[in-house]
Amino acid sequence: MRLRNKPWAKDLIDAHPELILARPESTIAGHWQERFPKTQPLYLEVGAGKGQFAIQMAQKYPDANFIAMEIQQSAIAEILRKQVELKLPNLQLLLGNANDLEEYFKPSEVDKLFLNFSDPWPKTRHEKRRLTFRTFLKTYQTILVDQGELVFKTDNQGLFEFSLVSLNQFGMDFEHVSLDLHHSEWAAENVMTEYEQKFSARGSRIYCLWSRFPSKND
Amino acid sequence: MRLRNKPWAKDLIDAHPELILARPESTIAGHWQERFPKTQPLYLEVGAGKGQFAIQMAQKYPDANFIAMEIQQSAIAEILRKQVELKLPNLQLLLGNANDLEEYFKPSEVDKLFLNFSDPWPKTRHEKRRLTFRTFLKTYQTILVDQGELVFKTDNQGLFEFSLVSLNQFGMDFEHVSLDLHHSEWAAENVMTEYEQKFSARGSRIYCLWSRFPSKND
Repeated sequence: MRLRNKPWAKDLIDAHPELILARPESTIAGHWQERFPKTQPLYLEVGAGKGQFAIQMAQKYPDANFIAMEIQQSAIAEILRKQVELKLPNLQLLLGNANDLEEYFKPSEVDKLFLNFSDPWPKTRHEKRRLTFRTFLKTYQTILVDQGELVFKTDNQGLFEFSLVSLNQFGMDFEHVSLDLHHSEWAAENVMTEYEQKFSARGSRIYCLWSRFPSKND
Repeated sequence: MRLRNKPWAKDLIDAHPELILARPESTIAGHWQERFPKTQPLYLEVGAGKGQFAIQMAQKYPDANFIAMEIQQSAIAEILRKQVELKLPNLQLLLGNANDLEEYFKPSEVDKLFLNFSDPWPKTRHEKRRLTFRTFLKTYQTILVDQGELVFKTDNQGLFEFSLVSLNQFGMDFEHVSLDLHHSEWAAENVMTEYEQKFSARGSRIYCLWSRFPSKND
């Protein structure tokens, strides 16, 4: 969702260059691990919203380094406000656009990628904007390690149907599918986004797909 | 579902060798088109139940030849009873077991295959019996033409989740997925099985996957 403009967002972002990069130059690519105290597997959430998922994942998995990437300044400023308090050593923020991922990351720099409740762009003429469209998949494959993992979660039936076909046609290997995540064997370990918490409480089904990219050498 | 034994079933089957083959010898393989007045694309339903789908499809698509295959004598006898009345020229029945498909059909003899509301075999130790398990997919690929089509429909969430993964891992090409067939763009042209009619009326969601096998030459 689009958030209201927050006048304080830009100042907060400018005040915390140790926690967030705003539309960085490509000099950061290949150097993400230097922004964390420990070199650990690098997990990236594309479209982190207000950050509940990234923050809770960083807390739950201290042995991984997380990057919460978000395109909206007002949203990522909310994550930053929490992170200024929490100071999680294994969480970094990135204000940026998914179209520019190959500027922000060098090939094979990322170990795992999460897409949560991405904008469904329901009109067919907008399908290229869906974050599971093949051009985005190609980008994810590039920045991920070989046969890297993509975990995709949504409550939007149309987007999930589209994504099952798009990922299959890209040659991705499906590991698990859940058509009702909150009533599945994975419910206990699932970390919810703000949006997921709100909409699943109203009875929406949550869909989830765990998949791996085909080898880059094929 | 398992039907009650019907004492009249065997006699009816024995009386109509022009309409039904019961566990035929492999001499039928390669000769199915001879049992139809016209040589037309050959469509096979594996697990035809009481036959509503196969009968209505044969009526709706006179330019295709249909084979309704079913393992239960009591079920296929119900189809036969209707077909004795209807005498649809483009419908043949086969009492047989999916494990024996390669005895009944020669390689590439079938143009398209339908699986409707197959037994979900929910226990993991029974997964090899699910008709979308990889050993069955291998058989379907053999009897189908190159890059042949498989259309799979179920209301069973667990079976659909399993099948999405199984078909993907087999290398099949997904063409469309519907997670709610009766409220989709395909609803109008959908031909329902008896079971589908009953359970969707009670509010069950119907899942459907249209897919193609990878080329046999790959």
